Amino acid sequence: MTWTRPSGRRYKPIAADPGPTPVPTPAPTPVPVPWDRAPNAEFELCELGAERVELDLGGHLEGVAVAYETYGRLNSVRDNVVLVCHALTADSHVARHDGGQHSAAGWWEGMVGPGLWIDTGRYFVVCANVLGGCRGTTGPRSADPSTGVRYGPRFPTITVRDMVRVQHRLLERLGVRSVACVVGGSLGGMQALEWAIMYPEMVRRSAVIAAPGKVTAQAIALNEVQRQAILRDPAWQGGEYEEGAGPAAGLGLARMIAMITYQSEESMQRKFGRTAPALADEALALRRGFEVENYLHHQGEKLVSRFDANSYVCLLRAMDLFDPARGYGSQDEALARIRAKVLVVGVSSDILYPVHHQWELATALTRLGKSVRSEGLFSPWGHDSFLIEIDGLGKILTPFLES
Amino acid sequence: MTWTRPSGRRYKPIAADPGPTPVPTPAPTPVPVPWDRAPNAEFELCELGAERVELDLGGHLEGVAVAYETYGRLNSVRDNVVLVCHALTADSHVARHDGGQHSAAGWWEGMVGPGLWIDTGRYFVVCANVLGGCRGTTGPRSADPSTGVRYGPRFPTITVRDMVRVQHRLLERLGVRSVACVVGGSLGGMQALEWAIMYPEMVRRSAVIAAPGKVTAQAIALNEVQRQAILRDPAWQGGEYEEGAGPAAGLGLARMIAMITYQSEESMQRKFGRTAPALADEALALRRGFEVENYLHHQGEKLVSRFDANSYVCLLRAMDLFDPARGYGSQDEALARIRAKVLVVGVSSDILYPVHHQWELATALTRLGKSVRSEGLFSPWGHDSFLIEIDGLGKILTPFLES
Repeated sequence: MTWTRPSGRRYKPIAADPGPTPVPTPAPTPVPVPWDRAPNAEFELCELGAERVELDLGGHLEGVAVAYETYGRLNSVRDNVVLVCHALTADSHVARHDGGQHSAAGWWEGMVGPGLWIDTGRYFVVCANVLGGCRGTTGPRSADPSTGVRYGPRFPTITVRDMVRVQHRLLERLGVRSVACVVGGSLGGMQALEWAIMYPEMVRRSAVIAAPGKVTAQAIALNEVQRQAILRDPAWQGGEYEEGAGPAAGLGLARMIAMITYQSEESMQRKFGRTAPALADEALALRRGFEVENYLHHQGEKLVSRFDANSYVCLLRAMDLFDPARGYGSQDEALARIRAKVLVVGVSSDILYPVHHQWELATALTRLGKSVRSEGLFSPWGHDSFLIEIDGLGKILTPFLES
Repeated sequence: MTWTRPSGRRYKPIAADPGPTPVPTPAPTPVPVPWDRAPNAEFELCELGAERVELDLGGHLEGVAVAYETYGRLNSVRDNVVLVCHALTADSHVARHDGGQHSAAGWWEGMVGPGLWIDTGRYFVVCANVLGGCRGTTGPRSADPSTGVRYGPRFPTITVRDMVRVQHRLLERLGVRSVACVVGGSLGGMQALEWAIMYPEMVRRSAVIAAPGKVTAQAIALNEVQRQAILRDPAWQGGEYEEGAGPAAGLGLARMIAMITYQSEESMQRKFGRTAPALADEALALRRGFEVENYLHHQGEKLVSRFDANSYVCLLRAMDLFDPARGYGSQDEALARIRAKVLVVGVSSDILYPVHHQWELATALTRLGKSVRSEGLFSPWGHDSFLIEIDGLGKILTPFLES
C-alpha cells in the first residue's frame, strides 16, 4: 500500500513492524470538552483522581486530568510508543485521525499518520496536552478539587518536569513500559530532554528540536514582555477575570510579540515585505499601515479565541524555569543520567533558540559519551520551521526512529 | 596638548585644522526647557517661525523650533561641520560641554570632544533633537500654532526626510554651506543616508551606522508591538492624556520590548544569565523572578520618566516609513543622487538591523559607482554597540572623516 501526502507526493511506506499482535488501547471514557471554543476537541481524558502529583518547586496537585490523543496501535509488548510533546499553544491534536477523513488538521499534519514520517502503521503515537495548558489537561482554568473554585492565578508554579511527570503517569495508565521515542519542538523539545533525564530506563530515543539545553536571558526577557502585556491589561484583574472574559488585548499583544520570535527577518520580509495597503491614511502613525501589522493582529486575535491568559502566563514561566541542571550539581550531572539515543535538531534561522544552543547541548552530550546525532535544519522560516518543514524534518526524524 | 579619555587612556590629538580664524557661532536666544524632566537640557533653540516646513507625506508644519547643541567652533568658510544625528529616544546632548567640567554625560560621551574621535578642536559638531521628538524640538507635545492646543495625536505623520529637512533649515540658519560629515546610528543612520540623497551638493561624507537601506517587515513588526503596547494602555486615551500623565505602563512595556532588540542573545546572557534572586517565591509565575526582568522593568521606568508616548509613536512610524526609494523609480535612482563618500558600518550581533542590511546598501552603492567604505564592527553587544564600542567605532570613523 502507498499513501498520498497532502502535497500530492507519494511515499513508499516504511516497512511495518510485524511484531506481536497488537492489543487494543485501554479505552478511557470520553468526556465533555472543557474548553468550549476548542475546535479540535477529539481527545480522551485520563483522570489521575486522588493520585497526588508532587511538583518540582514544591506543593502538589490532585485530581489531575490529562487530555490526550493516540494514533496507531500499541503492540503486545507495549514498546512501540512515540510520545509527541507539543509547544506552547498547541494541544494533543497532532494530526487528523482516520486517515484524514473525519477530523480537523493537527499542528503536525503530514508528520504523523499511516505511512508518514512517524508512521502510525508501526508506532503507537501519543500526544497529551501539557499540564498548565487549557486544552483539556488540568491547568489554571480547572477547578481546584479542594475548593471547587477555578485555580486561575492560584495555579501553582510548574516546570517542564511537572509536565513530564504527568505524561509519565498517563503512559503508566496506558500500560506502556518502554518508549521508542519522545519527540518535540520548542517547549516540546524541552520535555523530550527532561524525559530522557527523568526516566532514563524508559526512554530509548529522545528527539530535541529547536529547543535549548537551558533557557537563557533573552528568551526569559521575551517571555517577560509577553507576560507584562497580559498583566498590564486592566482586564487581567489579577488573573480573576470571569470565564469567557479576560485580557484579550494583552493576550493578543503577547501573541503578536511571540509570532515575531517564531519567524525570521528573512521570512517576514519574504512574506510581507513593505507592503502597505493603508499608507495613504492621514492618521497613519496610529493606525495599521503595513501588511505585516495586519498579520500580527490577526494572529493575536486567533490566539485570544482559543487560549486562556492564566494558562499562557503559567506556561511562559515553566519555559523560563527550564534548566535541567537545577537540583543537580551541574548540567553534566543531569545529562549523565540519559541512556536514550538523543537527536538534537537546530534550525538555521531560529532567533528564539539560536542554533548554538543545540550545538552546545549536543557537544555536552558527546563529551559525556552519550549517543548523539546533531542535525541542522536549513530553513529560512525561523523557529517555526519545525512546524513547516515537515519533509525536511521527517528526513531527519525517520532514520533516527529506525536507528 | 594631549587629552585624557574617561577611560584613562591618553590619546595623541589628531592634528588640528589650522584653517582660517573661526567665526563665532550665531547665538540663538536660550529658552526655557519645554520638557520639565529633561536632565540634560542645555540646548539652544532655533525658531523657524512662520517658515513653512512642507512634509514628505503631505501637509506642512509652521512655527517649528529646533533644539540643538554645538561643540567646537565653526571655521570661517563654515565647512567644518559634523552633523550628528541621534537615535530614537536620545537628544541633542551628544556629550559633555566644556571638556566635561560643567554638564551631564551625553549619549555619545567619549566619541565627541576635544581630541576625541570626532575632534571638536577641529570640527564644529552640531546635533539637533529630531522633529517629532520631545526633547526640545517641535513634536506632538508642542502646541499647534494655528490652535494654541497641543498637537498630541494630531501631530502629522512625519518621515525621516522631514527630520532631515528641518535639520537642513537649522544649518542654513547657522550659515553652514557644506557639511564635512553627517553621522548617526540606527534612526540617526537613516537620517545620514537621507541627508546624502536629499542634499547631495552639501554633504561631503555620510556615515550610516547600524541602519538599514530600508526598514523591512520584522523591524516594522517590532515597532508595531511597541506601538500596540502604548495604544492598548487605557491611559493612552487616544493620545489625549493630560500633560504629565500618559500611558506609563504601555510606554514602559514598549521600551522593554525595544531593549531586547538593542542587545543580543549573547550579551543578555553574559550580563544577566539565569540569575534569579526571587526564584523561591511561591507566586513566581506572576512576579519578577529573574535579574533580566528587573533590568527590563528598570529600563522601562527610566524611559517613562523622560519621554512622551505620542512622540514615541510618531518616531516609530517615521522609522517604519524609512525607504529612500519612495517617490523614486527605485532605490538605485535615489542612491544615484549621492555625491558624498559613504561609510556603512554594520554590527556583527545586531538583531534589529542585521548586517546583511548594511552589506546590501554598500553593494548597491558600489554598483552605482559611489565612493563607499563598508566596515563590520565585531561586537557582542548587539544593535546598541554603536553607543558602547566607542573606541572600536572611533577607529573606523576618524579615518573616514580624514579621508
